[in-house]
Amino acid sequence: MGGTYGENLIISIFGSSHGECVGVTAEGFPKGAKIDTERLQAFLERRAPGRNSWSTARKEPDVPEFQSGLENGVLTGETLTAVIRNTNRRSGDYEDVLYVPRPGHADYTSFVKYGDSADRRGGGAFSGRMTAPLCIAGGIALQLLEKEGAEVCARILSIGNVRDRGGVEKLTAAVKEKEFPTVSDAQGAKMQALIAEKKAAGDSVGGVVECVVRGLPAGLGGPLFEGMEGRIAEIVFAIPAVKGIEFGAGFSAARLSGSENNDGFCLKEGKIETLTNNAGGILGGITDGMPLVFRAAFKPTPSIALPQRSVDLRTMTETEIAVKGRHDPCVVPRAVPVVEAAAALAIYDALLSFRSDRI
Amino acid sequence: MGGTYGENLIISIFGSSHGECVGVTAEGFPKGAKIDTERLQAFLERRAPGRNSWSTARKEPDVPEFQSGLENGVLTGETLTAVIRNTNRRSGDYEDVLYVPRPGHADYTSFVKYGDSADRRGGGAFSGRMTAPLCIAGGIALQLLEKEGAEVCARILSIGNVRDRGGVEKLTAAVKEKEFPTVSDAQGAKMQALIAEKKAAGDSVGGVVECVVRGLPAGLGGPLFEGMEGRIAEIVFAIPAVKGIEFGAGFSAARLSGSENNDGFCLKEGKIETLTNNAGGILGGITDGMPLVFRAAFKPTPSIALPQRSVDLRTMTETEIAVKGRHDPCVVPRAVPVVEAAAALAIYDALLSFRSDRI
Amino acid sequence: MGGTYGENLIISIFGSSHGECVGVTAEGFPKGAKIDTERLQAFLERRAPGRNSWSTARKEPDVPEFQSGLENGVLTGETLTAVIRNTNRRSGDYEDVLYVPRPGHADYTSFVKYGDSADRRGGGAFSGRMTAPLCIAGGIALQLLEKEGAEVCARILSIGNVRDRGGVEKLTAAVKEKEFPTVSDAQGAKMQALIAEKKAAGDSVGGVVECVVRGLPAGLGGPLFEGMEGRIAEIVFAIPAVKGIEFGAGFSAARLSGSENNDGFCLKEGKIETLTNNAGGILGGITDGMPLVFRAAFKPTPSIALPQRSVDLRTMTETEIAVKGRHDPCVVPRAVPVVEAAAALAIYDALLSFRSDRI
Amino acid sequence: MGGTYGENLIISIFGSSHGECVGVTAEGFPKGAKIDTERLQAFLERRAPGRNSWSTARKEPDVPEFQSGLENGVLTGETLTAVIRNTNRRSGDYEDVLYVPRPGHADYTSFVKYGDSADRRGGGAFSGRMTAPLCIAGGIALQLLEKEGAEVCARILSIGNVRDRGGVEKLTAAVKEKEFPTVSDAQGAKMQALIAEKKAAGDSVGGVVECVVRGLPAGLGGPLFEGMEGRIAEIVFAIPAVKGIEFGAGFSAARLSGSENNDGFCLKEGKIETLTNNAGGILGGITDGMPLVFRAAFKPTPSIALPQRSVDLRTMTETEIAVKGRHDPCVVPRAVPVVEAAAALAIYDALLSFRSDRI
Repeated sequence: MGGTYGENLIISIFGSSHGECVGVTAEGFPKGAKIDTERLQAFLERRAPGRNSWSTARKEPDVPEFQSGLENGVLTGETLTAVIRNTNRRSGDYEDVLYVPRPGHADYTSFVKYGDSADRRGGGAFSGRMTAPLCIAGGIALQLLEKEGAEVCARILSIGNVRDRGGVEKLTAAVKEKEFPTVSDAQGAKMQALIAEKKAAGDSVGGVVECVVRGLPAGLGGPLFEGMEGRIAEIVFAIPAVKGIEFGAGFSAARLSGSENNDGFCLKEGKIETLTNNAGGILGGITDGMPLVFRAAFKPTPSIALPQRSVDLRTMTETEIAVKGRHDPCVVPRAVPVVEAAAALAIYDALLSFRSDRI
Repeated sequence: MGGTYGENLIISIFGSSHGECVGVTAEGFPKGAKIDTERLQAFLERRAPGRNSWSTARKEPDVPEFQSGLENGVLTGETLTAVIRNTNRRSGDYEDVLYVPRPGHADYTSFVKYGDSADRRGGGAFSGRMTAPLCIAGGIALQLLEKEGAEVCARILSIGNVRDRGGVEKLTAAVKEKEFPTVSDAQGAKMQALIAEKKAAGDSVGGVVECVVRGLPAGLGGPLFEGMEGRIAEIVFAIPAVKGIEFGAGFSAARLSGSENNDGFCLKEGKIETLTNNAGGILGGITDGMPLVFRAAFKPTPSIALPQRSVDLRTMTETEIAVKGRHDPCVVPRAVPVVEAAAALAIYDALLSFRSDRI
Repeated sequence: MGGTYGENLIISIFGSSHGECVGVTAEGFPKGAKIDTERLQAFLERRAPGRNSWSTARKEPDVPEFQSGLENGVLTGETLTAVIRNTNRRSGDYEDVLYVPRPGHADYTSFVKYGDSADRRGGGAFSGRMTAPLCIAGGIALQLLEKEGAEVCARILSIGNVRDRGGVEKLTAAVKEKEFPTVSDAQGAKMQALIAEKKAAGDSVGGVVECVVRGLPAGLGGPLFEGMEGRIAEIVFAIPAVKGIEFGAGFSAARLSGSENNDGFCLKEGKIETLTNNAGGILGGITDGMPLVFRAAFKPTPSIALPQRSVDLRTMTETEIAVKGRHDPCVVPRAVPVVEAAAALAIYDALLSFRSDRI
Repeated sequence: MGGTYGENLIISIFGSSHGECVGVTAEGFPKGAKIDTERLQAFLERRAPGRNSWSTARKEPDVPEFQSGLENGVLTGETLTAVIRNTNRRSGDYEDVLYVPRPGHADYTSFVKYGDSADRRGGGAFSGRMTAPLCIAGGIALQLLEKEGAEVCARILSIGNVRDRGGVEKLTAAVKEKEFPTVSDAQGAKMQALIAEKKAAGDSVGGVVECVVRGLPAGLGGPLFEGMEGRIAEIVFAIPAVKGIEFGAGFSAARLSGSENNDGFCLKEGKIETLTNNAGGILGGITDGMPLVFRAAFKPTPSIALPQRSVDLRTMTETEIAVKGRHDPCVVPRAVPVVEAAAALAIYDALLSFRSDRI
């Protein structure tokens, strides 16, 4: 259950939100690279819950315990395995859920697929908590990419109908490090107000995360099933609540003519660049050296206090459900580092393939 | 180059548009199923070029030659291999391309990755022609899905700013069989006029394909890297020119609140359904039994007759390029069956996994 | 480093003998099966060191800690992850080894491949200790196979030139449960005497393990890369010290004529069987319903107290080395359950594929 | 059916002996390498039937038709696909076989697994003919290895009880190029006489092929599932009739003490070598720079004219069968290049992994 990701850097996520722990294995990290574990921890904190008013009240430290592959802060070349203990389980919150599936959740589909079982409580393997181990591996990939001169930055592009100001060129490392990562703090404040309003109303709201990767060499990816779009999409859709992804001009490109959408080539200090970047840094599935740009659409948190229609699976009668428990009214702020982690893993995997292609 | 797709049904595409042939291998089709090869040929015709004013003037018959795996119209259980000969090669059309990369094409990135070589002419492995073998395997998967009671239908949702009328519930088998597959023929006529206009201007235009799959059981897919969204996105992004994908409400869901976006559960003739289908038939990466709905954004054809800025790679000087040769002013009409083929392969692969999960 | 094994049941081993822990991940175990953890522990004890005179004096409890996939003794269907802590590390024993490679060990080759690093001490990922996590997953597979009516039994067939008595038909469950698993206790006593003699002389000795699997259905495996011989060989060669494997009559078959080696078909109580079993239960890579039989050759433990020639990698001068530390004078007795575990994993994986093939 | 092999060089075999063609796909060959197609053809001729008295009377030219990946003798970097047409099919020879399984063949097991179907005639996917496409890919790998300074040579080590003279150090390129590749022509003549005798008696005989690979760098392979023994064994067991494999001293090592079997390290012209090569060039699953040596045991051809016991599957009654048709009385002479091809593919794949590991 859950599968694996990657070609040269192979990632697998295990555990569940209400089991002993959640964890990750990653095979393919290079031997000998030094990892700054304090920066890794700081990265994980960006995802961790309980830090502010727009995230769930659960406080979980999210401190990874490395079981293999990292010793004294150095990658050993062996399979990396790390777990995060689940210290703050309150499965009682989820008891009703066993028989009355929450709309928008995996309760019903996991019941159909896996049957009636304890690990469905709280989402189990479908929980947003599974993104914590993804961030461990992704945080390491981010540091390795930095050593290669590449930087991954993501921001909140929109919450509901409130949109950040400024094009992707404003999306810098300073932006992503903000507590609420938007270019415009004024728009960020409006987004926070919208989240607070939805929370007060027992409701939730969705949003869009935008991500840019700068400093990549041209040549990563390939045609057909090796394309960068497919590689990134595959891992980004592994993040719960993502329902769409687009690269460069994306869905807007479908409304343009070729003369508008094509990015002409030019020379800049002797180096080939494109005049515009509607391609989002990817041509024919292969990076062209321009910033790689994509956006992921997150649906609103399905867990809401408002009553919703559902069906009691024991009696097969229609009923209502109001979801209790501690839930983010909006997953988007905490999803920003997760999107960075996913992008870093996809790109670092492609980088390893690129090098092995060029042998 | 090109990679493989799938878990239980493993697809690989080989050849190139200017080589001997293009072809496909598919391992995992079940032994003994009867394939209607006339219907398969009719399906391939929907993608084939040269049929009308909005597609390229090249006429290529696209008749698959089965080398293994299909005998007397029956799947033998062995690896299926089929090729389509390239009968109408005119590589002279592409000579300039070798040194002056066409904007929006893979010319530059494949030069960076693979170096200076003959197979870059006409796009080689990056050509839209590579979707012909995808349609052979996909056309077989479509027939196998039909035997399971599932039907895949796609339409042109928009060309440029012209949008089809009617929700996805109007998207029936009758629509996909149209020569220009839109629900509203009036809107279809406007789209065709727009394509003709762009063609006359030496330009091109993009569009969106919408696809629905009805009759699927609940339970296909899984959490994390096994999710249906990721599986479908991975193969749909293998289609050249796709720059975005969304499931159900997709990017719109990011603007909604949870109470608007959640699909409440209800009973319909004793069966659990959802009141709405913003999830596009997928919850937690797993099909819920409702129609699976997604949309793919296609950028405008990059090959346009209008002059564009580029760089001569021999002299490293800026120059202009006007792309000659025979090109579709809009790839979207011919992409409709390709999207169906891709969806069918992803879903049939998930169906095989689903059954092996339940052993 | 280390890779993965399997098609439907995917196994990965992590950690190293001198790190924090050794562990295993296994994806694909079916949901809901009950595992007898006491029997699993008893199985692990058969491999554990320090139990008697012919094994190393290190005492390590080998108690698995399940982090995911097994709750209250029931497989949850999630990825199974288990670790065994390394409680008894004495890396000081291995310091010389860093620069003077031990003959017959991976010291030199891992130095060439991975460079100078701490994890080479004591063999790291090359240690026999890596078979402990293999036995966790294998022990579970053994219990699952039993539920299917299949039983895996291995014995010591020979140590040095001392060979057990009795054909494979004498190799029963009672034999494998013996402290020294041979059919003939008299021959077993001679083998133990030989081991003791070699130990006293500061030397070591090799041997052969024979394994039989009864109760398998006909139909597991397939032609070419799906054959049972290749599947089993791949995992058995992952056990350190294995240098050969043969199935059925094996190398003896190469000396026979077809009329001697072919196993004629007959009927026994209405069921098709073969008159002899030179094929070792495998025809064309597929099980034929007869007992599956194979033998694995183990080289003598390379760690010996006798002085041996080596090279000091610091000075690049020839030198001598006498290996200190705690080592088994013969790995074969402890390897018996490891061979059973490896066979069980290969066969259970093939069984899952078999069922998914027949969907 | 048949599966795939490899990690960086991925091989798949398709077709069957009585279908349209047999073929191979290989993904991962490097772009730009020049292949001597005449030498490749000469290599394929070593395997081809009908050349002399000890091989079947069928004459099939075995000329590969490259469909992609090789243009004008240069690897294009795309997936390589090649087929060999089946020009000389005589399926009438095999009609009885459909219902009365031949002892020692896959008839019965493929019936159990795949049911009653035409492709079982003549062995279909189980036929020795499937090794022809293996030799296409393997012949290319052999040439690529030569460019790296590595040479693969195999010989007939024994037929029945007749054994070649001379250790593996006598096994040179000149030996493998002989029409009957043995070091000692006198012993070779005895082997041929034995084959002729068995043929005259309507019987067959088995044998052993020995293979050495010289010029490999130290460092290929890895621990556990990445070991060279497992990689080579997996592909060698894909050759029909192989029932055993051993590396270096192999099964003999199991009879030795550590002081006898360990290969001490020494310096030779400043380079580290071993004094002996009982390890067969592999320590801890990794090449040590010494010649890689292995032996594969082939069972006698199961198709013999002598009557054998079998069961009629239609009536479920015991019966006799005498196999007609054209069959080699001994597959070993033609298997020699097949073993070289298999070794070359395994090693070239490991070489690609080795380089990508060292990135």
